[in-house]
Amino acid sequence: MTALPPTVADRTEAELISTIQSHLQPPPDWVVVGIGDDAAVLEPARSRLEVLTVDALVEGVHFDRRFTPPEAIGHRALAVNLSDLAAMGAEPRCALLSMALPASLSLADFERLAAGFGQLAARHRLHLVGGNLTRTPGPMVIDVTVIGAAKRRGVLTRRGARPGDDVYVSGAIGGAAAGLRQLRSEGAGTTLTGPAERYLRPEPRVRLGTLLGRNRAASSCMDLSDGLADGAQQIARQSGVGMIIEAADIPIDAAARARFTADGDDPVLAAVTGGDDYELIFTVRPRLRGRLRTVGRQADTTITRIGVCTPGSAVVLRHGGQDAPMPRGYGHFR
Amino acid sequence: MTALPPTVADRTEAELISTIQSHLQPPPDWVVVGIGDDAAVLEPARSRLEVLTVDALVEGVHFDRRFTPPEAIGHRALAVNLSDLAAMGAEPRCALLSMALPASLSLADFERLAAGFGQLAARHRLHLVGGNLTRTPGPMVIDVTVIGAAKRRGVLTRRGARPGDDVYVSGAIGGAAAGLRQLRSEGAGTTLTGPAERYLRPEPRVRLGTLLGRNRAASSCMDLSDGLADGAQQIARQSGVGMIIEAADIPIDAAARARFTADGDDPVLAAVTGGDDYELIFTVRPRLRGRLRTVGRQADTTITRIGVCTPGSAVVLRHGGQDAPMPRGYGHFR
Repeated sequence: MTALPPTVADRTEAELISTIQSHLQPPPDWVVVGIGDDAAVLEPARSRLEVLTVDALVEGVHFDRRFTPPEAIGHRALAVNLSDLAAMGAEPRCALLSMALPASLSLADFERLAAGFGQLAARHRLHLVGGNLTRTPGPMVIDVTVIGAAKRRGVLTRRGARPGDDVYVSGAIGGAAAGLRQLRSEGAGTTLTGPAERYLRPEPRVRLGTLLGRNRAASSCMDLSDGLADGAQQIARQSGVGMIIEAADIPIDAAARARFTADGDDPVLAAVTGGDDYELIFTVRPRLRGRLRTVGRQADTTITRIGVCTPGSAVVLRHGGQDAPMPRGYGHFR
Repeated sequence: MTALPPTVADRTEAELISTIQSHLQPPPDWVVVGIGDDAAVLEPARSRLEVLTVDALVEGVHFDRRFTPPEAIGHRALAVNLSDLAAMGAEPRCALLSMALPASLSLADFERLAAGFGQLAARHRLHLVGGNLTRTPGPMVIDVTVIGAAKRRGVLTRRGARPGDDVYVSGAIGGAAAGLRQLRSEGAGTTLTGPAERYLRPEPRVRLGTLLGRNRAASSCMDLSDGLADGAQQIARQSGVGMIIEAADIPIDAAARARFTADGDDPVLAAVTGGDDYELIFTVRPRLRGRLRTVGRQADTTITRIGVCTPGSAVVLRHGGQDAPMPRGYGHFR
């Protein structure tokens, strides 16, 4: 007889919560009531607005356990939410973690998942103040709610772009989509290259987002969870502007470009329609370029101008001398 | 050929969000940025602490679509969270709704679910400010995060009970457990009696909870999501007291008592170990009975004294002249 490794079904909810807590920093004094009561109680941040967002990762939709290490699942579940806060210019404060777990999940994997979550949380001084654990007869579902704070004048939305504003993107794009291709075709056993790491452990642009907000440098901002094509179109639609995006100026991850080309795809189209990059797209009034340079010097990522906002509503990709409508983005639902 | 009814897979995420919004009240002016951006932005409530909680309903674990109408799923997903706020003495402010939906879910059922959520939200002046929709290859999962507000001195926790405090429970218990038995054995086609309605559409004790907090009448409080046996033991453990609960004084729903008796069960044991009642258990210093009477006159439910806190840590059920340890509660995880 072989002893099976213990699973989450061998533990009570209280024991699993203790496991999570062992990966957390001690709570700050603004947490009045933390984990363990009917709800968490917090002091609001002084003179700040509250910024709230929730995002879910579903096994088989947003990650594949065959090639996504448990630490990466925990990291990504939090990163996608931190990216939303960054897009609003908000500083992270706290999170709620709600997990539906299959009874077959090993305790070891559960602990690694908690470790991945805890490490990213500690790096951004974000405190887990509550959550929920339940079993599920289906795939794992991880829901994270994150609460941040921003000054009223530092809030970034998708609505402030005007014709003439320049369009920028942070970092390089396409890496996550290329990484997912690599993981799907080669599995997790291979030595991971940059793109696979980009997919598994995206780095939310929290510092850039808060700098853009605090310096009032951006007229609109959004994260690229569903790709650059989607981001450009969302900002254009919600701001009531058009855009011309210069394909040649888009910073495409070098390894991703090589992968897309080897696969016979147009690297620009593959990069702009690929999801999961968690970079920021934002617009800047031309007279505020000086402020943007200040932000750029303090940010931990590059910033690249990729186009301009125009009157009207057309979002155009200028590619190889031709203007074409920006393709549709990556849709998580359909 | 029969045309199949449309499902959620026939709509974009934006269209589904519009359907939800059609069941919501217009947002109040403290919602600075609502649904449709990377995150919601709110003005905090003045001179209040923030109270946050999240809870998930998983199809096949917390509800069975064969006998739970979609409106009831939407209602319960919110009600279980409002019950947690009530247990803290907090007034509801806003919610985030995150749903993982099977592609087979009909649009009609999706809309009924949104209607059930929206009706309960409107009754408690709670505003949906954001959320997430994703598909799932597994069972439906509905995660609701609720944010409320409470004055610092009005926050109720599980930790304040002292020996000598009286123990109270709101309403009547056992109804939801009996209702679930009825639904499981007879299905949804039957005429629903009180207990089935109690299970399907629990009424969170928001008014009672906020009155207890505002009047500083209770020394501890918790909701009965996992049953009275669990609630008594949690308050005892977290407050560092024991309890004697008088079985004869426990208000058991009359129809539930009849059902448990007909099934050959001890009605007291069935009622205290049954979950899903969403009543409140709370403790009151004897000298504050006058305040409690004031609360009782304004609350929309009955309040019954069922026991007393004692020194030590034993939680005792005094039943038919015998003292026995309180049975274990209903465990949602194991």
